[in-house]
Amino acid sequence: MKYEYLSNKPCEQALSEYLTALKNAGTTYKTETVETRNANSAVTASAQYARRCSPHYCACAMDGIALRSELTNGACESSPVVIKPGDFVYVDTGDPLPEGCDCVVMIEDVVEDEGGAIRLYSASVPWSNVRHVGEDICMGDMIVPSFTVITPAVIGALLAGGVYEVEIVKKPVAAIIPTGDEIVDTASEPKPGDIPEYNSAVFSAMLSEWGVGSKVYPVIPDVPELLSSTVDSAARECDAVIVIAGSSAGRDDYTSTIIKELGSLVIHGVAIKPGKPVALGHIGSVPVIGVPGYPVSGIIVMDEIVRHVIRLLTKRPDMPAPRMSAYLSRRLTSSLKYKEFIRSRAASVNGKTVAVPMSRGAGIVSGYAKASGIITVPQNCEGIEAGSVVDMRLLKSPDEIQNSLCVTGSHDPLIDEIADILLRLDNPVRIVSSHVGSMGAVTAVRGAEAHLGGIHLLDTETGEYNVGYVQKYFKNGGAVLVRGVVRKQGLIVAGGNPLGVRGIADIARRGVSYVNRQKGSGTRILLDFLLEKNGISAESVYGYTREEYTHTAVAAAVHSGDADAGLGIYSAAKIYSLDFIPLWDEKYDFLVLSSVIDDENVKRFFETLKSDELKERLSLMGGYSFENPGEIIFGG
Amino acid sequence: MKYEYLSNKPCEQALSEYLTALKNAGTTYKTETVETRNANSAVTASAQYARRCSPHYCACAMDGIALRSELTNGACESSPVVIKPGDFVYVDTGDPLPEGCDCVVMIEDVVEDEGGAIRLYSASVPWSNVRHVGEDICMGDMIVPSFTVITPAVIGALLAGGVYEVEIVKKPVAAIIPTGDEIVDTASEPKPGDIPEYNSAVFSAMLSEWGVGSKVYPVIPDVPELLSSTVDSAARECDAVIVIAGSSAGRDDYTSTIIKELGSLVIHGVAIKPGKPVALGHIGSVPVIGVPGYPVSGIIVMDEIVRHVIRLLTKRPDMPAPRMSAYLSRRLTSSLKYKEFIRSRAASVNGKTVAVPMSRGAGIVSGYAKASGIITVPQNCEGIEAGSVVDMRLLKSPDEIQNSLCVTGSHDPLIDEIADILLRLDNPVRIVSSHVGSMGAVTAVRGAEAHLGGIHLLDTETGEYNVGYVQKYFKNGGAVLVRGVVRKQGLIVAGGNPLGVRGIADIARRGVSYVNRQKGSGTRILLDFLLEKNGISAESVYGYTREEYTHTAVAAAVHSGDADAGLGIYSAAKIYSLDFIPLWDEKYDFLVLSSVIDDENVKRFFETLKSDELKERLSLMGGYSFENPGEIIFGG
Repeated sequence: MKYEYLSNKPCEQALSEYLTALKNAGTTYKTETVETRNANSAVTASAQYARRCSPHYCACAMDGIALRSELTNGACESSPVVIKPGDFVYVDTGDPLPEGCDCVVMIEDVVEDEGGAIRLYSASVPWSNVRHVGEDICMGDMIVPSFTVITPAVIGALLAGGVYEVEIVKKPVAAIIPTGDEIVDTASEPKPGDIPEYNSAVFSAMLSEWGVGSKVYPVIPDVPELLSSTVDSAARECDAVIVIAGSSAGRDDYTSTIIKELGSLVIHGVAIKPGKPVALGHIGSVPVIGVPGYPVSGIIVMDEIVRHVIRLLTKRPDMPAPRMSAYLSRRLTSSLKYKEFIRSRAASVNGKTVAVPMSRGAGIVSGYAKASGIITVPQNCEGIEAGSVVDMRLLKSPDEIQNSLCVTGSHDPLIDEIADILLRLDNPVRIVSSHVGSMGAVTAVRGAEAHLGGIHLLDTETGEYNVGYVQKYFKNGGAVLVRGVVRKQGLIVAGGNPLGVRGIADIARRGVSYVNRQKGSGTRILLDFLLEKNGISAESVYGYTREEYTHTAVAAAVHSGDADAGLGIYSAAKIYSLDFIPLWDEKYDFLVLSSVIDDENVKRFFETLKSDELKERLSLMGGYSFENPGEIIFGG
Repeated sequence: MKYEYLSNKPCEQALSEYLTALKNAGTTYKTETVETRNANSAVTASAQYARRCSPHYCACAMDGIALRSELTNGACESSPVVIKPGDFVYVDTGDPLPEGCDCVVMIEDVVEDEGGAIRLYSASVPWSNVRHVGEDICMGDMIVPSFTVITPAVIGALLAGGVYEVEIVKKPVAAIIPTGDEIVDTASEPKPGDIPEYNSAVFSAMLSEWGVGSKVYPVIPDVPELLSSTVDSAARECDAVIVIAGSSAGRDDYTSTIIKELGSLVIHGVAIKPGKPVALGHIGSVPVIGVPGYPVSGIIVMDEIVRHVIRLLTKRPDMPAPRMSAYLSRRLTSSLKYKEFIRSRAASVNGKTVAVPMSRGAGIVSGYAKASGIITVPQNCEGIEAGSVVDMRLLKSPDEIQNSLCVTGSHDPLIDEIADILLRLDNPVRIVSSHVGSMGAVTAVRGAEAHLGGIHLLDTETGEYNVGYVQKYFKNGGAVLVRGVVRKQGLIVAGGNPLGVRGIADIARRGVSYVNRQKGSGTRILLDFLLEKNGISAESVYGYTREEYTHTAVAAAVHSGDADAGLGIYSAAKIYSLDFIPLWDEKYDFLVLSSVIDDENVKRFFETLKSDELKERLSLMGGYSFENPGEIIFGG
């Protein structure tokens, strides 16, 4: 197979060229006729006209008597008219208007006379208190036009109009073909080097939200002939084909070549990041798209390109995702070569919405799942300055972003536990949290970018926790320090402690590989303090430069064997059944923005902190103790 | 059964009392465990934690060589280091980091030396170009908390974290029981007095959008014992019971009494309009709700009350409908007794969004289907002045409201045909239209509340159409008159013309019942002109006071036999296979707001007016002729 150089077409241009090519190739929708009552959320394939009037008969709109209005002429308070029996009929609401009658007099206005006659004290005009034929819908009226989503009310209008079957756009089916020698089915337990296949599940879920069914094929190894025959049959069986991975230009990237051989390749390479190595082509009228294998790259390509292609098959009106503008928390740099899509967390504090960019790793699907929205940095733009207003395409509801409690700072699993408890309340509170270390919490609260943050900052002079930092960084107030929990910090080592690590001195030993935490984290500060206290230089610690962002990441490194020791909390060691050498009791407290201390969500956060349910959950995790959690230590 | 007086509880109070009663009765959700890949859009029943790290092994992040970083110490441009064969391993991206290695040097920086050795010109730090275990997710991390909607990305994160099965909230099933002697299944052709049953289809579609399944029961006649036993078994079989109609306090309204007998009735009657006669109760822990039978009343009760009740069973986060503020086009009066929900059309003209209240008839489901949104008038509020800013709960997307073309004025089916053609274009345009008569178009365009409107206004002095009115009402410009079509107006009479109607004089004949159009409509003006011309008084026309709003409504009245003649256009007569006595050729033109004459959507409207496709459609309908449609007649 000959090497393919990727183009770098601007996204909009690539998409419109591709859509044009598909239209010329005859890519279009199919139709089917279904029962109207089962057609909710389907798309009409043609205009639908009423086959019947609703109501289909002339109906009495009141309980009372029906008669011919001219009999009431001249009736007034001073001279009532008498209506003989036989000249009127008692009726109920909804009854058909009796033959020869043209109005209804409500029962309250009917005075019974002797001999079954009645007296009326006011005249009626024709058609008073009568519900006309077609008041709702008239036969022949267009109830709903083409290519319109059928809502519950439209179902009602169609059925009222006697349209019991409706022509809709047939739900298309897309083939999803995962490829790659290293890709294994998620069912099996993966060996080192294996990559569990889950993109197909993510993509078919996205497709179903766009009104498209999917057929997931078994994983195809990097064998050109095998991939080629699979793509060929998929193009016969389905309305669109999505090939996962192999869409780039490397040794094992066959997708583009195969599309070229079986049909035609329109675009190979789009100027987006992540997602550049995308292959856009078709076999006959069937779109065939090579999507990159990194999960986030794939999701971006699905959203920015496949979603629009699919609309040729569904005719579903484009529903632009809700957008929101927010202040950018920190500077974003971006390549001039690409239109870049950056996940970010967003929350509103004191009515100001701030967007915090998240990791850009194309492999970090958990980040995409947690993101509030996507910030787009246009091609030919170097970046966006901190504090600028950016426009986010939302992945969560605007309501969720505006009403969530924003918690940041030092990582501790208790934040997630509190978040879960708060969501289980009758009147739930949602937390948007991120791990930026204790100093990150100080910065965020100073910038009013978070309601509160967890900190465990050791004053290396006094040996005291947190208070000193609050005094230093909030000289003029603005923050309240609220007591949290006491945590055991210590060295996390392999089960059975094979290297016999006893204390901090041992991490500098030859043959001991250490895993560190990022600068600004309370645990990093504690380590540096302990090293200094023991007269150990950072250089002598092998792996000092290796930084992880959470306690579990440190434990995971030790558990996997590519580190021998790391400083972290007990609960992390316990999850991985590792040994733990306790070194320090530290105070993990909460720094709260003063102006929100009485905020309802903040109050409920601290109620939960004090709750027995949290105590129970933390005692199961281990390594925590409580001394008046929720009490105000400083400020306020 | 004893007569029940309805209470008139404020909506919010009624709802919260009912929800409290249900919680006390033990109304809650069920759970089940499903395959994660099939769990899209389900709601988590518990927090989900990663069972595995992702990646689960330490991986090379580059193609190149892996080695132990200390071997590169001191390497620089001036003095490279040589690495002996056996001290390094060639690796590809994604390969596991080989035993004993702690970094990867990218292939571009590797210089091959003789004897299979290599030279490096720069030193590497440990863990450079290495993807750590748990970079995405670490074992033990909470991936998603309780009561959270599972999105495609969450599915990815769960599978990446080794969570192949997930505990979700089980989809509840609601029983829907239609009742009433006059209610017939939509399958059968309804006789006069029959009311076709379609509420069950509307409600189950609404429920499915809220994540609830439904079981629709056959129609139950007004026999208390039968209804009672059906409700009783439904409460055993389903998680909630909705009884349609019979929820009021009339002769045949048994629902509330039955709820009281089988369980307990919490609220009967809520201060909302439409929807007052609602019965809220429960049998054991199963909510049982009596919903009024008028379709729009039912939809409102479902939206305002049932939706919240259902959330006890689904735990689905409340997704508030999008809202938009708009200027109210005309005064709204409302009863002090009720919180009123008023359907309205809305469109943006020159960036200003105007809401036009629609018919309030509780039977007009077609109106609900077409409405852009709902304006709520609070209880104890007499109404809202024209021009005030109102807050709408949207039934259409904000995008649709802001980008639709607003067409109003005289009714003609050609507007709907143009709307359908515009939606079938590659780049569709959506029309929001309403029938307010020709003079209504003049008013709307003057108020810049519509882009354009159809008019056929006869100047009874000159016999000329439209121009005179534009000159009179747009003395200082502001409107452009664009040529539309010529339509045949005439008398619509029963097939075979049994009463031998020949001309306008005949509608004043004794025994001829006429159906008229509303004041301000062009057809009404034409009728008055013709009557005057023939020296006929309005009083002598039986049915002159009976007003319909569309040509099809007039034809429907004649077709149903409760009118003998009406003035209207040929196409309406044709739909109902009625006879037509042509009287007049009239000019149906378009009045366009000058400031939008170059608007893209307006241009495409007139391109469509000139299109062959429209000509074909109208020639099938009959009664139209064309003379330079789209040409500017006046103004601009």
